Amino acid sequence: MARIIGSDLPNIPWQDKPDEERGVVWRYSDNPVIRRDAIPSSNSIFNSAVVPFKGRFAGVFRCDDTARHMDIHAGFSDDGFNWRIEDPVIAFEREDAEITSDYKYDPRVCWIEDRYYVTWCNGYHGPTIGMGYTTDFVRFHQMENTFLPPNRNGVMFPRKINGCYAMLSRPSDYGHTPFGDIFYSESPDLRFWGNHRHVMRTTDGWQSTKIGAGPIPIETDEGWLMIYHGVLTSCNGFVYSFGAALLDLEKPWKIIARSNPYIINPREIYELAGDVPNVTFPCAALVDKDSGKVAIYYGCADTVTGLVFGKIDEIVNWVKANKM
Amino acid sequence: MARIIGSDLPNIPWQDKPDEERGVVWRYSDNPVIRRDAIPSSNSIFNSAVVPFKGRFAGVFRCDDTARHMDIHAGFSDDGFNWRIEDPVIAFEREDAEITSDYKYDPRVCWIEDRYYVTWCNGYHGPTIGMGYTTDFVRFHQMENTFLPPNRNGVMFPRKINGCYAMLSRPSDYGHTPFGDIFYSESPDLRFWGNHRHVMRTTDGWQSTKIGAGPIPIETDEGWLMIYHGVLTSCNGFVYSFGAALLDLEKPWKIIARSNPYIINPREIYELAGDVPNVTFPCAALVDKDSGKVAIYYGCADTVTGLVFGKIDEIVNWVKANKM
Amino acid sequence: MARIIGSDLPNIPWQDKPDEERGVVWRYSDNPVIRRDAIPSSNSIFNSAVVPFKGRFAGVFRCDDTARHMDIHAGFSDDGFNWRIEDPVIAFEREDAEITSDYKYDPRVCWIEDRYYVTWCNGYHGPTIGMGYTTDFVRFHQMENTFLPPNRNGVMFPRKINGCYAMLSRPSDYGHTPFGDIFYSESPDLRFWGNHRHVMRTTDGWQSTKIGAGPIPIETDEGWLMIYHGVLTSCNGFVYSFGAALLDLEKPWKIIARSNPYIINPREIYELAGDVPNVTFPCAALVDKDSGKVAIYYGCADTVTGLVFGKIDEIVNWVKANKM
Amino acid sequence: MARIIGSDLPNIPWQDKPDEERGVVWRYSDNPVIRRDAIPSSNSIFNSAVVPFKGRFAGVFRCDDTARHMDIHAGFSDDGFNWRIEDPVIAFEREDAEITSDYKYDPRVCWIEDRYYVTWCNGYHGPTIGMGYTTDFVRFHQMENTFLPPNRNGVMFPRKINGCYAMLSRPSDYGHTPFGDIFYSESPDLRFWGNHRHVMRTTDGWQSTKIGAGPIPIETDEGWLMIYHGVLTSCNGFVYSFGAALLDLEKPWKIIARSNPYIINPREIYELAGDVPNVTFPCAALVDKDSGKVAIYYGCADTVTGLVFGKIDEIVNWVKANKM
Amino acid sequence: MARIIGSDLPNIPWQDKPDEERGVVWRYSDNPVIRRDAIPSSNSIFNSAVVPFKGRFAGVFRCDDTARHMDIHAGFSDDGFNWRIEDPVIAFEREDAEITSDYKYDPRVCWIEDRYYVTWCNGYHGPTIGMGYTTDFVRFHQMENTFLPPNRNGVMFPRKINGCYAMLSRPSDYGHTPFGDIFYSESPDLRFWGNHRHVMRTTDGWQSTKIGAGPIPIETDEGWLMIYHGVLTSCNGFVYSFGAALLDLEKPWKIIARSNPYIINPREIYELAGDVPNVTFPCAALVDKDSGKVAIYYGCADTVTGLVFGKIDEIVNWVKANKM
Amino acid sequence: MARIIGSDLPNIPWQDKPDEERGVVWRYSDNPVIRRDAIPSSNSIFNSAVVPFKGRFAGVFRCDDTARHMDIHAGFSDDGFNWRIEDPVIAFEREDAEITSDYKYDPRVCWIEDRYYVTWCNGYHGPTIGMGYTTDFVRFHQMENTFLPPNRNGVMFPRKINGCYAMLSRPSDYGHTPFGDIFYSESPDLRFWGNHRHVMRTTDGWQSTKIGAGPIPIETDEGWLMIYHGVLTSCNGFVYSFGAALLDLEKPWKIIARSNPYIINPREIYELAGDVPNVTFPCAALVDKDSGKVAIYYGCADTVTGLVFGKIDEIVNWVKANKM
Repeated sequence: MARIIGSDLPNIPWQDKPDEERGVVWRYSDNPVIRRDAIPSSNSIFNSAVVPFKGRFAGVFRCDDTARHMDIHAGFSDDGFNWRIEDPVIAFEREDAEITSDYKYDPRVCWIEDRYYVTWCNGYHGPTIGMGYTTDFVRFHQMENTFLPPNRNGVMFPRKINGCYAMLSRPSDYGHTPFGDIFYSESPDLRFWGNHRHVMRTTDGWQSTKIGAGPIPIETDEGWLMIYHGVLTSCNGFVYSFGAALLDLEKPWKIIARSNPYIINPREIYELAGDVPNVTFPCAALVDKDSGKVAIYYGCADTVTGLVFGKIDEIVNWVKANKM
Repeated sequence: MARIIGSDLPNIPWQDKPDEERGVVWRYSDNPVIRRDAIPSSNSIFNSAVVPFKGRFAGVFRCDDTARHMDIHAGFSDDGFNWRIEDPVIAFEREDAEITSDYKYDPRVCWIEDRYYVTWCNGYHGPTIGMGYTTDFVRFHQMENTFLPPNRNGVMFPRKINGCYAMLSRPSDYGHTPFGDIFYSESPDLRFWGNHRHVMRTTDGWQSTKIGAGPIPIETDEGWLMIYHGVLTSCNGFVYSFGAALLDLEKPWKIIARSNPYIINPREIYELAGDVPNVTFPCAALVDKDSGKVAIYYGCADTVTGLVFGKIDEIVNWVKANKM
Repeated sequence: MARIIGSDLPNIPWQDKPDEERGVVWRYSDNPVIRRDAIPSSNSIFNSAVVPFKGRFAGVFRCDDTARHMDIHAGFSDDGFNWRIEDPVIAFEREDAEITSDYKYDPRVCWIEDRYYVTWCNGYHGPTIGMGYTTDFVRFHQMENTFLPPNRNGVMFPRKINGCYAMLSRPSDYGHTPFGDIFYSESPDLRFWGNHRHVMRTTDGWQSTKIGAGPIPIETDEGWLMIYHGVLTSCNGFVYSFGAALLDLEKPWKIIARSNPYIINPREIYELAGDVPNVTFPCAALVDKDSGKVAIYYGCADTVTGLVFGKIDEIVNWVKANKM
Repeated sequence: MARIIGSDLPNIPWQDKPDEERGVVWRYSDNPVIRRDAIPSSNSIFNSAVVPFKGRFAGVFRCDDTARHMDIHAGFSDDGFNWRIEDPVIAFEREDAEITSDYKYDPRVCWIEDRYYVTWCNGYHGPTIGMGYTTDFVRFHQMENTFLPPNRNGVMFPRKINGCYAMLSRPSDYGHTPFGDIFYSESPDLRFWGNHRHVMRTTDGWQSTKIGAGPIPIETDEGWLMIYHGVLTSCNGFVYSFGAALLDLEKPWKIIARSNPYIINPREIYELAGDVPNVTFPCAALVDKDSGKVAIYYGCADTVTGLVFGKIDEIVNWVKANKM
Repeated sequence: MARIIGSDLPNIPWQDKPDEERGVVWRYSDNPVIRRDAIPSSNSIFNSAVVPFKGRFAGVFRCDDTARHMDIHAGFSDDGFNWRIEDPVIAFEREDAEITSDYKYDPRVCWIEDRYYVTWCNGYHGPTIGMGYTTDFVRFHQMENTFLPPNRNGVMFPRKINGCYAMLSRPSDYGHTPFGDIFYSESPDLRFWGNHRHVMRTTDGWQSTKIGAGPIPIETDEGWLMIYHGVLTSCNGFVYSFGAALLDLEKPWKIIARSNPYIINPREIYELAGDVPNVTFPCAALVDKDSGKVAIYYGCADTVTGLVFGKIDEIVNWVKANKM
Repeated sequence: MARIIGSDLPNIPWQDKPDEERGVVWRYSDNPVIRRDAIPSSNSIFNSAVVPFKGRFAGVFRCDDTARHMDIHAGFSDDGFNWRIEDPVIAFEREDAEITSDYKYDPRVCWIEDRYYVTWCNGYHGPTIGMGYTTDFVRFHQMENTFLPPNRNGVMFPRKINGCYAMLSRPSDYGHTPFGDIFYSESPDLRFWGNHRHVMRTTDGWQSTKIGAGPIPIETDEGWLMIYHGVLTSCNGFVYSFGAALLDLEKPWKIIARSNPYIINPREIYELAGDVPNVTFPCAALVDKDSGKVAIYYGCADTVTGLVFGKIDEIVNWVKANKM
């Protein structure tokens, strides 16, 4: 039985699995957990990242405003269900005045050693991976962009691997990219990156157009559990579902198992209709080592934020039982 | 008044027309008649074919699984409303080991002489028309593909015409084909096909992008009643509606009348939202000679199966009154 | 405080702003105000133009029939909420037999001096701006097309400017045009047009793909208030929202202020789902000089007609406060 | 036998038809008549317009510079073969400071009544028809653009028709437009334009993608002789050929005859290879009433200027004999 | 050493291999062997099929006329170098009045048993494989089209295989198709076709976009030698080269060897420039059993006809030595 | 007068400027300097890099073979005109077995400190920048790829800047990329890369679609002289020309001057016709400090290699005089 390598989180937001549920994860009964107009300026709040913070929870949230401009905001919660999101956007202190941001979206937050690192899709002559850090979710520092644009879905690993920081990302083009594999890169210092390795390519069905890492990978004794989204192109556009894979602990570009089915796909009306129909896009997961519980936050229809629950050991077993 | 040339089916599933209804057909009040998760492995069940079978009903169902792989399954029903679909996919006995199937979808079932012929979109170096037969919906035999790929929507006629088996089909490309007329082809033996004739081209409005035959054509004393789908391309993708046409009994590539309006278009939320929004796609019809009743099964949003009712003579009259 | 330059309309359809509403305009509580099947032949009724008429209201309505053919119909209402739409299409008397119409859609109606001018998208070897007039909404005269095709969204000003009639329009291509700026043109006689000026280009966010004038511009002492739609291209197609701008009274191609956010975007299920998901498209506004009230009619999902309310002075202030 | 309605031009540049020639026009033996680097700044000189001028010849020439910026230059010749082109671009005096030109290309020159009118493709928020005039080819005045963009190939008639100035044009999109019919428009004053009529649509073969008027139409007693280019799309891009049509003298949107074959297509190496391979694009014709001679200047491969010769009566007969 | 199974042809057109030549085939020194204007009406003559005929040679030639309409013509030659092509198009006697031809192009001619069968790309609601026969190249009979459109490059085998006639073809779409594999089909009677088998898919380099059979396959004791074209898509369009493969004698869909390099690619100016630059497209081969000589006729730049020479045994060895 | 910061190269290949030449560089009179079939296996030899080597010259050459597979070869020359290219491809010793190469093309060679570094477009799950080194052009070592794919045109600076190695590159997509700006990146160790800076974007005319660095930048006392290619998209495809820019010596992402015109564009038949028409693509430059001479090697039509000559001080002055 897979065990989480991590910390206890006894106050993880949680609902038990409904009797009739047959999936390996199940939706929060009061989804969407964050509504589109939770702050005065917002058109939509989705694709957002939450972490445990001082016994409670904090996060970085993608809020598109009513001009449909994309930016990220800090937010706080006592229970992981009820969120207070700051109306002003995060004002980063920039390390170098040249590292500009035309826009910011799809943040992830990752605690490594002594601080919370934030990565996001940063508009610098195209979308690339922006990076910064905070210790308090009040002051944020912006570092160098990690890669050349265009790139999206930059996701850190929560510890150094083989002495280097490690990141997953998906090279893209400048539009609604119709391709995208997941790659792995290393850095000794979070400034210079190299040793790029190909991790996973697109295959069939729900993951046939492009794929991208979602939450920070979850370390288990059986490998890194990577929740990732996949995109299928129907005659009416993209459909975003999500599945899971197990990656080798020391060589994360080696796949131990990858799920052939999805875990979650768009089914509920708040996932099927909205600014972008048919999107379920995971960006963060809370885990409790002791109980193996996991709570995954995911964007719905690029409009609101949803929440699903599961058990890590069950997900790991499901990935192995349903691998391609 | 048009009369069906066929058999009685006194237990045809049926609801009378609601008072307020102004269409020539009307929806089953408890649609969708088959839900997306009717079997454990299914993501969706739609575009499926049902026939009378031993005083009850049987059918071949398109069930995409949660990997979004497409395959077909057998199913049975006592009343045409409540269906028991087999969870395992149909395992065909193949006539020739080279006739492989990367996938199967959009089946039709047609009784001719002594057996049920099944046609479907078969993945053989692209989509083409796969063909097989069964007598019991338990054992199925796979025959040669009828045409070169890419082709879709192969629909048999229920008897020989001029001494040959006859099939309608729509040549396609390998993707979300933006064109497609209906053609007619003949075969002496269901192995070799020729005498290809053009039947109908795309026109305007709901049938401006592509068209394709739906259920097995219904023989009437006024001609073959062909229910067919048409596709319109909006700025947000394809919209699948369906209409009807009357074809000459002996030269079915000659059109007697073709409906200018659609009969059904996507209006209900289960037709407007789902894996592919805005799809109503008919694949099968049950008819009762005595009463003239027809029950049409159609896929909804590529996700669930719907059912509409009508009267053959009214539909025939409507086609003639609304012909283009 | 901006004042309308126009007429009183004490019987303007109206609902007060709900307490919880935070937008500058708010939806009618019983939207859609006109349903898709309000006349026997209609598939959908949307993108339509209403005006005060003899103490009551009249209008020209886009009704696509169930062949998905596009045409325009006259209609009448006592209160602006309940509409009686004529089932037959408007039969124009044509000035010149060569000015044909393959289709008509997206009408606007504008009172100038002594009659109601109707403009619409007219199918003459592609979409262009058709023009006609009526005095009674019973007899309609068709004039020359104003511009070469392809063009859409031709919107008259309600008075001569600098001695000329004036029109806004958006040059297009023949399909689902992925570009479109707003231009201004003048005519001494409504037959010959020139002095073309560029007014507004596409920018970012909700108005990044194309823009087009909506209702007849509303004259205020601070400038022409132009409600206009903007289109954003998501990976799943176009999203139509609408905003507002203030144009110079005498040189309307000069922008005084232009809203960075939208006023209304698709949020309700009748805006998010329908023949074309995610469309809110304004075509007409009723205004009451005395109270400053405005009632805007807009197409929803290319399927039904919606109604929103607001106050002109608040909208003008909002545009100035939220300009780009 | 068709007779030119016009002036004598005894010094028209000329070569007799070679014996082996079987076409209705024939190439100048020393083509290209103007080479790509005839002025210091030029990358290419093509698609240019020449006219008789004070017993000699003058013209307006499209010269792309080595930045590949497009502009027009004046030029002079004693014999129509040897040209002195001004290195500085034409500096227009503008009637209204708002009528800007991001670029100018593909000029035509037309004498009407008392001056030479120049039309060209003018960059004003996209390509449209710019217009100006000169009397001496030294000073040039820029008037209002005639139409909304995007439009190209605006060609004047050399006299008023039914009391109005008249122009042919081809509405376009903003890129390498894959469509284009020829329209006719009228103006009482060269400022306001209307009475738009469709003249010719694309058909098959060499004129299947788009068509556009070339030189100023030549008045004959059998109708206006319009030389026009047509475009075919091969798998390797556009191929520009040219043919001819006869238009009704008083209703020039009525076609008397239109050539099914082309007159000239790309065959010589200077037509097949260059900045844009496979282009022959006529922009001007000199005619001599007395002899019926015509000399057509045409752009070759968007790089150099070619010259072909013919006889008006033979061309008219050929059009009638080879009409579609 | 591979031996031809066929007939002697001592008067095969021939030139010995030049000393400096390093390819396995070499060009005729006076290419193009047929020029574009060999008949009065022609724009181009290419992609044409020649056969031995009564001790001399005959053929069917693709001649596009100067309207760029595509049709096929008969022609005769004493020596295979000098051709007399009939100016009138071939007037087929049609078996069934419904088998129409909007156009005909890219013919192949194949002697089987007692007559010359002609196949070509036939315009019947799109391009498909037209078929006919002649015995004298004067009278031609048109049979049923073999497949549903769209299809191109239908090439017969010169004898029955396993009791059936056999044909290679390439299913296509309606435009400049960007895909295309070679398939094999069988017919007992040249009317009905079936037993479709996939032969070869596109791979890399010169044969990465689409492939298609060229001349009638040449029977050798080592297999069918199939000369076939392949297409690479550069940023400036398609490049057509040709290579060769050996197919199993009794199961021709089984590949014995397939050449990784091309045999011929566009290099000479008549191959690089013309109506479609960068095309070398083989359609016919003459072979002499005794000497092993082969003369391949191929279209050049879709404009003229070229000729290359080789030795069958050397080509077979080269295919085996250079197989992929 | 700009002075080269570098070495003397008295035996630089050279021809004096012809009298009639008006460009700032001029072509070698015997171009193409390397022909397409200079080695037995080659289809084409172009886009290649040469350097001074032991008093003579060596280089790395792109040779596509007759399967149209792309790879790189070493070569040697005594005089820079006559080249002996190795027929076998370069067999790199790989640092890590996972750094595979599906293909290699468009090499550059740069001497830094103690060795020749080679960069090229390397096929590793898409095109990216491969890197290796040699000291003798016999043994080559392959290092880690510098960036994530897709990327092309990676060009080293010949010395460290601010303590880091520095590289220009152009992020791309996987096909015939229709976009592309030049970026600058730094590395402390040639393994990890960061501090990415945007250098130049596309503008108009010849450099409107994409741009990319060509030869190793040439250090002068007025800045780095960067020769770069630019691409214009005509209706018939891409046109590759080249120009020059001056970059700041210590902050090379700062542009001092950038040429508005091109230096060289496709004009000669070996540049206009070939595997890819209309390409001139510079990859290497030899310079002689003493005389200021420069010899630029460039690919022609993706088929052969050309050579042009110039003087560094004249080019620098020309860039400053013709800057945009």
